[in-house]
Amino acid sequence: MKKLEQLYEGKAKKVFKTDDPELYIVDYKDDATAFNGEKKGTIMGKGVINNRVSNHLMKMLETHGIPTHFVEEISERETVVKKVTIVPLEVIVRNIAAGSLSKRLGLPEGTKMKSTVLEYSYKDDALGDPMVNDYHIAAMGLATKEELETIAGYALKVNEILSEYLKDLNIELIDFKLEFGKTSDGTIILADEISPDTCRFWDSTTGEKLDKDRFRRDMGGVEDAYKEVMKRLLGE
Amino acid sequence: MKKLEQLYEGKAKKVFKTDDPELYIVDYKDDATAFNGEKKGTIMGKGVINNRVSNHLMKMLETHGIPTHFVEEISERETVVKKVTIVPLEVIVRNIAAGSLSKRLGLPEGTKMKSTVLEYSYKDDALGDPMVNDYHIAAMGLATKEELETIAGYALKVNEILSEYLKDLNIELIDFKLEFGKTSDGTIILADEISPDTCRFWDSTTGEKLDKDRFRRDMGGVEDAYKEVMKRLLGE
Ligand SMILES: Nc1ncnc2c1ncn2[C@@H]1O[C@H](COP(=O)(O)OP(=O)(O)OP(=O)(O)O)[C@@H](O)[C@H]1O
Ligand SMILES: Nc1ncnc2c1ncn2[C@@H]1O[C@H](COP(=O)(O)OP(=O)(O)OP(=O)(O)O)[C@@H](O)[C@H]1O
Ligand SMILES: [Mg+2]
Ligand SMILES: [Mg+2]
Repeated sequence: MKKLEQLYEGKAKKVFKTDDPELYIVDYKDDATAFNGEKKGTIMGKGVINNRVSNHLMKMLETHGIPTHFVEEISERETVVKKVTIVPLEVIVRNIAAGSLSKRLGLPEGTKMKSTVLEYSYKDDALGDPMVNDYHIAAMGLATKEELETIAGYALKVNEILSEYLKDLNIELIDFKLEFGKTSDGTIILADEISPDTCRFWDSTTGEKLDKDRFRRDMGGVEDAYKEVMKRLLGE
Repeated sequence: MKKLEQLYEGKAKKVFKTDDPELYIVDYKDDATAFNGEKKGTIMGKGVINNRVSNHLMKMLETHGIPTHFVEEISERETVVKKVTIVPLEVIVRNIAAGSLSKRLGLPEGTKMKSTVLEYSYKDDALGDPMVNDYHIAAMGLATKEELETIAGYALKVNEILSEYLKDLNIELIDFKLEFGKTSDGTIILADEISPDTCRFWDSTTGEKLDKDRFRRDMGGVEDAYKEVMKRLLGE
């Protein structure tokens, strides 16, 4: 398979065409951004770690029945994925209050909520990724009712599988963001990435943050945190 | 029945105890506020109009099977209502994009959406009444799943009844906010008010705004718009 022209350069990854019309190659960068692009920086080695961590987790999720875009890791930073049309929603699952939810709803970070929270943001940088509910999604035609049911079902199942999996690695899954897409035959699959960029991981014993919040909040130890996650997941 | 001490003075109404433990008296003021209290003013005669309009609409809704807090209008500005514990949610129903939805989602005001939108705000002035979905409401214990289903069902039914009713008066119902409460036996009923303060009413022919947006946006003709709504609804 041949890597062809670059289609898109995002904040964290580049996406390339291939000579297979159903496949893309994603290339993970070390660039880090936060607060809708307001804060910019570099996390050395992040691209390599996120590529490997995301692929590892997607493979694990596949064994539990979650269809993903993962096809093959072809280099440290590059992975072949199924081409999808991204559903323009950030699908956020929250077990413990943190980040924007804590701020918006006045729940101190670390608050254990009565039940899991699923929320959606409309992926639109100019609008600042506003929160939307099922009715907005239907009214704007962002996804059909059936597609959204599939997405919600997968998101909650990913939460169960991933929380359980990480618990054994002494990591508490606080919250995370997923993106889903549609393949050319209309099948909904998990796409984008699952990494310390897109999840909040707290050490189960110490509560230490092992994710992008160290970058967002200038806490230091950013690279070490990403490395620690890779070590716990991949043993290296 | 005796009017006893004032329990609460809100931005638009005062609430009084009565000698019946299950009843309150609400007293409608001419005070107007907007943007979470940032903008303040007076709309002469508003209290009288909103009292009469809200009671008229609640009585009409009762005949269509919606339980409301309305008991008896006892003066121009005062009404006896069933005492409830307010569910801390603003329940918003939208047929046409306007106001905060237009801004947040980039839909020009007046956009006809593919379907009706139901959304909730957590009633908390300090937090600026943040939007919440079913999961946040469950996770924060703001209402049970069953209560929320009842509320959503009533809100959508109110939208159907009210849209139809207003259409005959040449008024288009763009969106509106409801509040629900629980009586002492746990029954969910419609409470608070339904008025030009809490609805967007547009003249069906001219599109002229007949609601609080005239105040919010300094459009002039505020009192006349409120009077016009009363005239169309009550024939005077
Ligand atoms: N399998 C896939 N097929 C097509 N596009 C994908 C796939 N997986 C991820 N994407 C998209 O590729 C881009 C990845 O780049 P990156 O994550 O850097 O984007 P970004 O800066 O977060 O911007 P945005 O998500 O707002 O487009 C994203 O737009 C993502 O939605
Ligand atoms: N039947 C009822 N029983 C008890 N409280 C009610 C009832 N109907 C309305 N209320 C409450 O009475 C108050 C009415 O006052 P008003 O509408 O002026 O309040 P407000 O300034 O909008 O403030 P807020 O709604 O944030 O309390 C509101 O708090 C409303 O929720
Ligand atoms: Mg991204
Ligand atoms: Mg009020």
